[in-house]
Amino acid sequence: MAKAKNILFIMFDQLRWDYLSCYGHPHLQTPNIDKLAAQGVRFDRAYIQSPICGASRMSTYTGRYSNSHGATWNNVPLKVGEMTMGDHLRKAGMDCWLVGKTHMKADTEGLARLGIPPESKIGKRISECGFDVFERDDGMRPHGPDGLYDDHGAETYNAYLKAKGYEGDNPWHDYANSGLDDDGNVESAWFLKNSAKTANIAEEDSETPYMTRRGMEFIERAEGPWCCHLSLIKPHWPYIAPAPYAGMYGLQDMLPVVRTQEEYDTAHPVLKAMMTGPVGASFSRDEVRNAVVPAYMGLIKQIDDQMGVLFQWLKETGRWDDTMIVLTSDHGDYLGDHWMGEKQFFYDTSTRVPLIIYDPSPEADATRGTVSDALVESIDLPATFLDVAGGEAVPHILEGHSLLPILHGTATETPRDYVICEYDYSATTLPKTLGVPITQAQIFMLATKDWKLIHFDGGFRPMLFDLKNDPQELVDLAEDAAYAPVLDDLYAHFHAWALRPSRRTTCSEADFAEMRAKSRTTGVVLGTYDETEIAPDLVRHYVGRKARPWTETVNRTE
Amino acid sequence: MAKAKNILFIMFDQLRWDYLSCYGHPHLQTPNIDKLAAQGVRFDRAYIQSPICGASRMSTYTGRYSNSHGATWNNVPLKVGEMTMGDHLRKAGMDCWLVGKTHMKADTEGLARLGIPPESKIGKRISECGFDVFERDDGMRPHGPDGLYDDHGAETYNAYLKAKGYEGDNPWHDYANSGLDDDGNVESAWFLKNSAKTANIAEEDSETPYMTRRGMEFIERAEGPWCCHLSLIKPHWPYIAPAPYAGMYGLQDMLPVVRTQEEYDTAHPVLKAMMTGPVGASFSRDEVRNAVVPAYMGLIKQIDDQMGVLFQWLKETGRWDDTMIVLTSDHGDYLGDHWMGEKQFFYDTSTRVPLIIYDPSPEADATRGTVSDALVESIDLPATFLDVAGGEAVPHILEGHSLLPILHGTATETPRDYVICEYDYSATTLPKTLGVPITQAQIFMLATKDWKLIHFDGGFRPMLFDLKNDPQELVDLAEDAAYAPVLDDLYAHFHAWALRPSRRTTCSEADFAEMRAKSRTTGVVLGTYDETEIAPDLVRHYVGRKARPWTETVNRTE
Repeated sequence: MAKAKNILFIMFDQLRWDYLSCYGHPHLQTPNIDKLAAQGVRFDRAYIQSPICGASRMSTYTGRYSNSHGATWNNVPLKVGEMTMGDHLRKAGMDCWLVGKTHMKADTEGLARLGIPPESKIGKRISECGFDVFERDDGMRPHGPDGLYDDHGAETYNAYLKAKGYEGDNPWHDYANSGLDDDGNVESAWFLKNSAKTANIAEEDSETPYMTRRGMEFIERAEGPWCCHLSLIKPHWPYIAPAPYAGMYGLQDMLPVVRTQEEYDTAHPVLKAMMTGPVGASFSRDEVRNAVVPAYMGLIKQIDDQMGVLFQWLKETGRWDDTMIVLTSDHGDYLGDHWMGEKQFFYDTSTRVPLIIYDPSPEADATRGTVSDALVESIDLPATFLDVAGGEAVPHILEGHSLLPILHGTATETPRDYVICEYDYSATTLPKTLGVPITQAQIFMLATKDWKLIHFDGGFRPMLFDLKNDPQELVDLAEDAAYAPVLDDLYAHFHAWALRPSRRTTCSEADFAEMRAKSRTTGVVLGTYDETEIAPDLVRHYVGRKARPWTETVNRTE
Repeated sequence: MAKAKNILFIMFDQLRWDYLSCYGHPHLQTPNIDKLAAQGVRFDRAYIQSPICGASRMSTYTGRYSNSHGATWNNVPLKVGEMTMGDHLRKAGMDCWLVGKTHMKADTEGLARLGIPPESKIGKRISECGFDVFERDDGMRPHGPDGLYDDHGAETYNAYLKAKGYEGDNPWHDYANSGLDDDGNVESAWFLKNSAKTANIAEEDSETPYMTRRGMEFIERAEGPWCCHLSLIKPHWPYIAPAPYAGMYGLQDMLPVVRTQEEYDTAHPVLKAMMTGPVGASFSRDEVRNAVVPAYMGLIKQIDDQMGVLFQWLKETGRWDDTMIVLTSDHGDYLGDHWMGEKQFFYDTSTRVPLIIYDPSPEADATRGTVSDALVESIDLPATFLDVAGGEAVPHILEGHSLLPILHGTATETPRDYVICEYDYSATTLPKTLGVPITQAQIFMLATKDWKLIHFDGGFRPMLFDLKNDPQELVDLAEDAAYAPVLDDLYAHFHAWALRPSRRTTCSEADFAEMRAKSRTTGVVLGTYDETEIAPDLVRHYVGRKARPWTETVNRTE
């Protein structure tokens, strides 16, 4: 085995950490992913930085907290000037390619202001979050009365489907994400009652196999060293699986719903607004869960099978031996847990993700098949990749830590004591519902291994969970006076985090050290009363000089 | 009088708020500046955002806190992508020009990464903090064994002096900032004992008249609307005045030094390190104060006379009637107060600056000659200027508030309850002295009208001053248990400030409001179980569609 030359960075969308058998799901067997874990390290406390696709990904791709990069929700442009994984890796001699989804929205205003042509090589990379694009596909083609949801939705995939003979203007919707009744009516999986149906598509043409193949096509053509972000949309909604995955799981295979009447009745006002909103209310209905969860499981089973195909192919082509493989997700999915749907808010259900890293290098032999309970954040990935690429660490820019020491068995923990997750709900209906100005429509999570603090900007009380004794996070302890010292301690960490100098990205620690000495040796000799007080060399340009009275030198005719 | 068409934004360097007669100096008469105050509004609680030239100015020019823009000390590059006054004003149809100092360090690495040629129009503006340059002169030409301190030091000024007949390689030093003894020896004002001497230069050739004339030359040629940043170096060190200002003030004219033995003995450890460092120790000596302060006063008297010349000229040329005039400073100078020299740390001596705004428009007639005690920050200036230029407010980028409502008498306060000042001491010797990692080498000030909290990152205790009863800030109350509730209250404000979403600059409030509605109207109809639950228009692309079974459509030959 050789040292990892390339990186295959696989991300699924909305994949819960606990819906893989290696993470403990009792009924959903994912042997291929489990095998990857057996060959690598499975991280058991990997947290994303925001429970929403766009913000989570922007953190992963920039290696910076949401509050640092500012792209705090879906479709908030990542501003020109923020450095990305691609910037760091290319500097270290590794290409950085995209196959699939990023949810990146280009800062077109910033590009125009800085005079960067969007079609130039640099302009394209900035617009694509630092990636060179093999295929960009954000995985969805929603369509409403005001038009399409985004500009990157399933275009190439739709073209592929059309070429294969699938009909209509949007086969992504009509075939990949819908069933079909006996009368030829499309049963759209936008309506959750249809999630239990079978997608009207050949399995090989559905989204996961399609994009997996695209990944292999990239790797086949690529010359290393490369980092390939293979970014697949499923098991993200619309929830519907093709045969044979549709119907593969039944009610008896579902994890029991995690919710109590008491948590609902006593819920924090912001949380309650989420629970009682249309999505929360919908996923609180048993008929919704019963339709959706089996489809969600089928989609994951399909993912696992496709990973089997991919890993086998990597072995056959030799890439298994020189490629680090990272498998993770951008957040989870409540599926009715905690009276919620979707992914907003900070239960582990959403903020904790699967993270498996297989490193082919001999240094990693000692840790194969181990489980790490280190506190890991998604922002650790760019720092890890930069380390693999042999680049110099840039802790003044990348806020995460390389995981190589853990992968190589030289460390068991990351340097952090807590993980952070942030949620900006400015773009939702909640600020209006709750009467919160958008400058305060923010929630923050700080979690240690034992505790989880949730801080609400805008004057709300906090929430507190005891992760050790209440891992399902059902009992909010924040108002229990007995836990005031715990809250104080967590808040001290939180306030320190909030003050981190994360915008100071243009000077490294070494730069500052150099500046310390430099002002004096370039002549700024502050506070010197008399030249005898100071080293002669420092003032050699100021002493022993001769001049004439200005009256004798000045050209008065001018 | 017409509505202000242009803005003349005058900044002095290291000018204390209390060294002007309109601000109460009993012995230093500044009648010309006082007259400006009589025609405008004098702000009595104007605070800068960092007590160091570079960081203070970057905040003023970007309209953002130091912690937001990241250029936290002298010569820390302002990263490409940060918007400046110039960006905002030009968008609103107003030019933005520089005559003098900015202390801007270009982010050359960022320019290269983004492929922006430094010599292009946009590249130059980015390199010059958003200004078009009439004359850039950071005002100093320090020279040591490792070369020159910066690349922008007095080059054009030195060329001017040489053309006038001043001799040598660096007449800025040998003439403008040195005396001369009878034997022809240059008496450098880098050595404070020489501050009491007379600069060996014709008064008209010294720095303040020179740059004032350069300002008039710009205005003479300029076509409006323009904003001109006339940025003068004095009374910044080296401290030495030309005749007749040298010797104009004596010991009897000096303000008494503000310091007590108790504050020294009980000083906070970080503060004590400053007091006992070379600069603090030097300015704690009476001989230093006695040499420096009269020179400092002479330089200010010269400034006032030059402002008289400038204002008269503006009246003669008609610009007085269509130009807003702003006069301020980037920070103060301890001059031995609190056992300190220079400007670091957060006593009002340094963080509070003179700010006088004269608005020629009739709307401002009601406030002429008034004094405002509103809590004002330097970051309010770009917001004010943008308001004058008629541009739309951008509170998601500019963190300050327009002062026009106060100038026009429609408000008496800014919307803020506190001011913030920040100091990053990473580039000083203090982190090493104190054993503080550079990620924690930060101090923050939060001041209301009544209280001043100083928070030290890195685990130190805070400081607290009662501004009402102890305006000289001699008694630190932070360890007095009686003030714990005051501290708690100030800290609550401080923590809220630290969480402000200031990096979220690519979406305005209106953008977020639009996003709220838009995801549903572009087809993202989350949580819908059945199409009958939702407005038909929202799902019109999903219902009533027809398809065939995929087995009948797919081209299996492919």
